[in-house]
Amino acid sequence: MNSVKHIYSNPIPIEELAQYAQATLQGSSDVLISGLSHLEGATCGDLSFVVKPKFHEAARSSQAAAFLTIHPIPDDPRPQLICPNPMLGIVMLAQKYFSPPLPQRGIHPSAVIGHDVRIGPDVSIGALVTIGARAQIGSGVTIYAGVHIGEDTVIGDDSILYPHVSLLTHCILGHRVILHSGTVIGSDGFGYAQHEGCHQKVPQLGNVVIEDDVELGANVTVDRATFGSTIIKQGTKIDNQVQIAHNVVIGEHCIIVAQVGIAGSTQLGHHVMIGGQAGLVDHLTIGDQVRIASGAGVTNHVESHHTVGGRPAVAHNTWRKAQVLQYQLPEMRNELRALRKEVEDLKQRLPKPSSPPLPT
Amino acid sequence: MNSVKHIYSNPIPIEELAQYAQATLQGSSDVLISGLSHLEGATCGDLSFVVKPKFHEAARSSQAAAFLTIHPIPDDPRPQLICPNPMLGIVMLAQKYFSPPLPQRGIHPSAVIGHDVRIGPDVSIGALVTIGARAQIGSGVTIYAGVHIGEDTVIGDDSILYPHVSLLTHCILGHRVILHSGTVIGSDGFGYAQHEGCHQKVPQLGNVVIEDDVELGANVTVDRATFGSTIIKQGTKIDNQVQIAHNVVIGEHCIIVAQVGIAGSTQLGHHVMIGGQAGLVDHLTIGDQVRIASGAGVTNHVESHHTVGGRPAVAHNTWRKAQVLQYQLPEMRNELRALRKEVEDLKQRLPKPSSPPLPT
Amino acid sequence: MNSVKHIYSNPIPIEELAQYAQATLQGSSDVLISGLSHLEGATCGDLSFVVKPKFHEAARSSQAAAFLTIHPIPDDPRPQLICPNPMLGIVMLAQKYFSPPLPQRGIHPSAVIGHDVRIGPDVSIGALVTIGARAQIGSGVTIYAGVHIGEDTVIGDDSILYPHVSLLTHCILGHRVILHSGTVIGSDGFGYAQHEGCHQKVPQLGNVVIEDDVELGANVTVDRATFGSTIIKQGTKIDNQVQIAHNVVIGEHCIIVAQVGIAGSTQLGHHVMIGGQAGLVDHLTIGDQVRIASGAGVTNHVESHHTVGGRPAVAHNTWRKAQVLQYQLPEMRNELRALRKEVEDLKQRLPKPSSPPLPT
Repeated sequence: MNSVKHIYSNPIPIEELAQYAQATLQGSSDVLISGLSHLEGATCGDLSFVVKPKFHEAARSSQAAAFLTIHPIPDDPRPQLICPNPMLGIVMLAQKYFSPPLPQRGIHPSAVIGHDVRIGPDVSIGALVTIGARAQIGSGVTIYAGVHIGEDTVIGDDSILYPHVSLLTHCILGHRVILHSGTVIGSDGFGYAQHEGCHQKVPQLGNVVIEDDVELGANVTVDRATFGSTIIKQGTKIDNQVQIAHNVVIGEHCIIVAQVGIAGSTQLGHHVMIGGQAGLVDHLTIGDQVRIASGAGVTNHVESHHTVGGRPAVAHNTWRKAQVLQYQLPEMRNELRALRKEVEDLKQRLPKPSSPPLPT
Repeated sequence: MNSVKHIYSNPIPIEELAQYAQATLQGSSDVLISGLSHLEGATCGDLSFVVKPKFHEAARSSQAAAFLTIHPIPDDPRPQLICPNPMLGIVMLAQKYFSPPLPQRGIHPSAVIGHDVRIGPDVSIGALVTIGARAQIGSGVTIYAGVHIGEDTVIGDDSILYPHVSLLTHCILGHRVILHSGTVIGSDGFGYAQHEGCHQKVPQLGNVVIEDDVELGANVTVDRATFGSTIIKQGTKIDNQVQIAHNVVIGEHCIIVAQVGIAGSTQLGHHVMIGGQAGLVDHLTIGDQVRIASGAGVTNHVESHHTVGGRPAVAHNTWRKAQVLQYQLPEMRNELRALRKEVEDLKQRLPKPSSPPLPT
Repeated sequence: MNSVKHIYSNPIPIEELAQYAQATLQGSSDVLISGLSHLEGATCGDLSFVVKPKFHEAARSSQAAAFLTIHPIPDDPRPQLICPNPMLGIVMLAQKYFSPPLPQRGIHPSAVIGHDVRIGPDVSIGALVTIGARAQIGSGVTIYAGVHIGEDTVIGDDSILYPHVSLLTHCILGHRVILHSGTVIGSDGFGYAQHEGCHQKVPQLGNVVIEDDVELGANVTVDRATFGSTIIKQGTKIDNQVQIAHNVVIGEHCIIVAQVGIAGSTQLGHHVMIGGQAGLVDHLTIGDQVRIASGAGVTNHVESHHTVGGRPAVAHNTWRKAQVLQYQLPEMRNELRALRKEVEDLKQRLPKPSSPPLPT
């Protein structure tokens, strides 16, 4: 099936790319680049990248037109852009030259927009978008087809909402926030008071605040606070199908991988990293730069800079040792049985405890 | 960023709130309440609540205008509403006075409604809703923008469907059901017959029946039955991102926390509670008032009133002991090695088994 | 509440069903069948099925009008269709005679269709569907209400997209693909380059390719590749709420149960089966016909034909033994303590190590 690599750009002279990526061009400057690719997938016209010398062989057999590399690739005549961080270089070039274009600016006539909505300049509001009364849409915002925006919401500049996002009433997005398809911001928190065997719904009267440069994946859910705000602070990136309960506060620049669940009122510091499918119970305090292994079940507070794993989560080393040893349980049990037998044998071969002790 | 606490109500005299919550007013009655809040977030005009004496100090330093409390807060001049269950009181007041208003009644002109649809009085059908032929919508129902309702569905009175719910053909909702955004009711069950290395789809011919007063969170999925019905009985509350497979039956007044998965044909009794991220395999029978710990993997039937945890799930006490001891495995192995060594030493110091036994 | 069993078909003579299912009719041919059901739910007019003799008693007390069965049911006067694989027979009959009809053919006037879209014959495009520019829709395709199809996508013949699917730009679906509601195809992969404490978004320039006869459940997410394609090969079936990260390749005829997560660039062979809630880390190679137990956490490559389970996943037998023994940890620890005490006692009863050894 056909590839989509070359769709986003007219060919760019390699010298221009070298200059923008602050890289040193080695070899011919007479090459045009029309796309980016990893080494195996590269075809003619592609710029590829090499982050370690061990990939030099793969580079030589790649069909790329040129390379962005930390060390020069020996014995290869193709142009090379030498720079200290090729991955960052490729990101810069991709963002500048090779990203898919934003959709056409303007408001599609099929969008349904409530009263007193304020809309900044240079927005793109797609087909069949619904925007509730009094919402505020910043400049440069892109709202794809079928998005729903509730009443009294605020969306900062240059944010992007992909198709079928539900951003519910009174929630607040900062600038450059990205919400992927199917994500729900501002659903009710899960709170009930017990009364005569029934669960009485606690009205969820707060909202969700998402700060600048946050990205949320597809089908994420972020519940509104009971009172006050559920908060995701700036620069945090969250993968698909993550669940954030009411009154959670997530610090700056965290990374939360897919299918994680964070229960109510738990607070995370900055630069926390959480692996896929981990779960955090409610009302925890997780410090700064904490790392939580994938699949962990966190049931206690974690101090800053610690790494934890396992269910229940404990210090990383403790968890790793126990993880390995669980599979030696059969041997341990057999050894226990063997020892029991030998101790019984030894007991048989010794005088009975009621006898006088052996002379020493 | 701004708060949303005071948006929902005109100020209410505290005496009216005391009367409605069946609480005894102590202190001045000359106060108007314009919102509810927890102690830390409260500002002037807020009523807050105190469920235990240990929060009296936090109450005294809170900026709330008044308190709903089980015991009088000493040394605080502000009005206090004394009642036996402050949490239930706050819920009653929130439901009555401080909940967000339902959207405007009526049918938005952009809604697409099929033939022979029956719609009760006092409904709100939002922008760009689609309703299939022969659906029945009860009185007082609220359907937010972008909801899809399939053919031949039935929705009971006063139910609320948030934006982007998919309620598919032939499914039946009771009264006062709440479905949050992105939730899918009536997707096909996951069933295939094997035939020559391929998976032949088993048509899923049943439906989903959701009884009165059920609430489902955001991005929940409930599959339709192969034959018959997948059933969620009255009063059950289900959190975000829960998966309910075909032919599952969930009893009355259950609580199912986020990211739980329940496999096909498993049946739950009433008042079952399931912690987040637990999984239940197919064809299980779970009794009444069973409690399943978060993260558990249930592979066997569970009798009524039992509490289970772990993977595979076992009795709660058994699981908790094993959970703690898993992290003592390194010490246990070291102790085993030490014992082995000592037993070998002892053997050396005893006559060989072939020798006559020591005199006793 | 009412059943939906008989809605899909006019009554069919049982002889016609016998012929189509290649079954031998035993008993009266003078019966009309109007629906299919399992034994307990069957009512008059239903054909039910019996896969094992142990269900003969349940069959005799069922109200079904007739049975599809591998062995004749003794002492039952009702017509019986004898065939070697009743489950496959029921699937064939359900697909042919008793499946819900596809929605009306044609393009709903409220659909918003971009420029240069190519649409094959005999399609059904529902209300409020949005289709981006240059998309290609094959013949016989069914697109339910509220689906979004991005620019430059390709959809093969006879595929079905349920309400609120998001199929994003440049993705490619084969023939007879089924996507259930809320599923997102082509969201950005989760990739960032670290730069001075911030996470720089790596543009995700690839797409998703889904081959023929693949079915994805509700609220599934499949991320587009960074470069190249995320691929799901033909005949694979994926349950609800599964997460497939960027650059994953899933082989032919796999079965992936609900809430599984597969991290970036991991590759699966053909006929792999993954139980619910399992997780696979990134960059793994999983061979053909591998079986992964539900809840497993796979952190290493798995060779073809192996079965693994546990966190971290190991060979099935190793995991099962350890799983059972984890709950014997308290007994093992007690046994260790008892042995320690007895060894100490034995040492007391033996000469001190500094003494000369016992004569042998």
